[in-house]
Amino acid sequence: MPRYALKIEYHGAPFAGWQRQKEQTTVQGAIEAALSRIEPGDHSIAAAGRTDAGVHALGQVAHCDMARDWEPFRLSEAVNYHLKPAPVAIVACARVAEDWHARFSALERQYFFRILSRRAPATHLEGLVWQVRQQLDVAAMQEAADHLTGRHDFTTFRSTICQADSPVKTLDRLDVTAHQTDYGTEVHFDVRARSFLHNQVRSFVGSLERVGTGSWTPDDMAAALAARDRAACGPVCPPQGLYLRHVAYDENPFA
Amino acid sequence: MPRYALKIEYHGAPFAGWQRQKEQTTVQGAIEAALSRIEPGDHSIAAAGRTDAGVHALGQVAHCDMARDWEPFRLSEAVNYHLKPAPVAIVACARVAEDWHARFSALERQYFFRILSRRAPATHLEGLVWQVRQQLDVAAMQEAADHLTGRHDFTTFRSTICQADSPVKTLDRLDVTAHQTDYGTEVHFDVRARSFLHNQVRSFVGSLERVGTGSWTPDDMAAALAARDRAACGPVCPPQGLYLRHVAYDENPFA
Repeated sequence: MPRYALKIEYHGAPFAGWQRQKEQTTVQGAIEAALSRIEPGDHSIAAAGRTDAGVHALGQVAHCDMARDWEPFRLSEAVNYHLKPAPVAIVACARVAEDWHARFSALERQYFFRILSRRAPATHLEGLVWQVRQQLDVAAMQEAADHLTGRHDFTTFRSTICQADSPVKTLDRLDVTAHQTDYGTEVHFDVRARSFLHNQVRSFVGSLERVGTGSWTPDDMAAALAARDRAACGPVCPPQGLYLRHVAYDENPFA
Repeated sequence: MPRYALKIEYHGAPFAGWQRQKEQTTVQGAIEAALSRIEPGDHSIAAAGRTDAGVHALGQVAHCDMARDWEPFRLSEAVNYHLKPAPVAIVACARVAEDWHARFSALERQYFFRILSRRAPATHLEGLVWQVRQQLDVAAMQEAADHLTGRHDFTTFRSTICQADSPVKTLDRLDVTAHQTDYGTEVHFDVRARSFLHNQVRSFVGSLERVGTGSWTPDDMAAALAARDRAACGPVCPPQGLYLRHVAYDENPFA
């Protein structure tokens, strides 16, 4: 059966996350249902990142196997037609080898987190950012973030329900930058690793926000990491500022 | 009575425009109602731009007169409290002279228009952009836009219900730029003038989109302007990509 890679954008709000669940609306379920409308029968797709409820995607990647030989653009158009009006869209589609796997072939996941730092309520960005009413010290946040990059035991920043075999992961990048926008100050996080523990990015951002507001020092972050204790983590931040932005493969299937 | 300048952000979707109307939800009505909650009685505020239904603001400016001497930040916080949950927020507030007028003191209005040019449906930007499914030739659009800047009779680009005394206006700027974003190609319009005719920006953008898709040449824009005939205008584009971004005064009241 011909295999296709799908690059997927979605708004996390209406979904109980990526992964198919009985009696819950999920992104995987929505796409599989759309595939069933164009090729009857059961479809089972695999994705690079199993995002949680409320988390957005700019570039989730999944693969599907089809009975017919579809021209990739026509397949994406047909799936998008049947996805409407759910806020999920196939933004690119490519034919891939039959042993290519969206999850197992992935070399790196890149997440983006967006904080809006201002007092006044957000009117356009509601649901697309985590709004923090204090000013944030971005230099201190970056100093704290620098303690996290590299290979570490990330038990502190791992949900208690995480099913990964090991808490040891290599964090490739955690960049914290401030941007002046039409809406005021935004703080952006660029977070990259081959793979992540459950709630790892939101645990990082929630802890870094404490540094930004001054209730933690950058050294407190180093101590939290060294504690290897979930109780040492800051509050896990809400999902609506988090985006799965890009999945890197040995060769970009959509290039 | 002390006078205050308010810088206002709002999402246009739930409102029948800026201007107060009986039995319609408007931005002016929402802010005046919030003011009545903090100082009982009727309030009447004046704004720099009377935006249409569905049009957003990033930096609308209005002024209000208060009985009490408010610390500006506290006034903005109190108004925002009573505006909730409507998507309207006071993002800056300043004390101004009693003869300062948000509308009559304004030297320039700056509008921003945002087109998302891509095939796949928008999932995060729904309601915040005008989505055009074709690719757009931005160089041709800028060439056409250059015919519009300067002092002209803009009868072609003026709604038939426009109440301005004269169709002759000076367009200070109309810049068209392409931007590669996480969502694909966006085309942005930066449009500036001391004042605008009714529907002028949306008439410009609707006509420029015709140039972008190739159904008009840049010279067709010059001919449309020269016709001084409403029937020569392209389709008026929808409101959800339009933002009142900034109002310029001799001296920035919020500096």
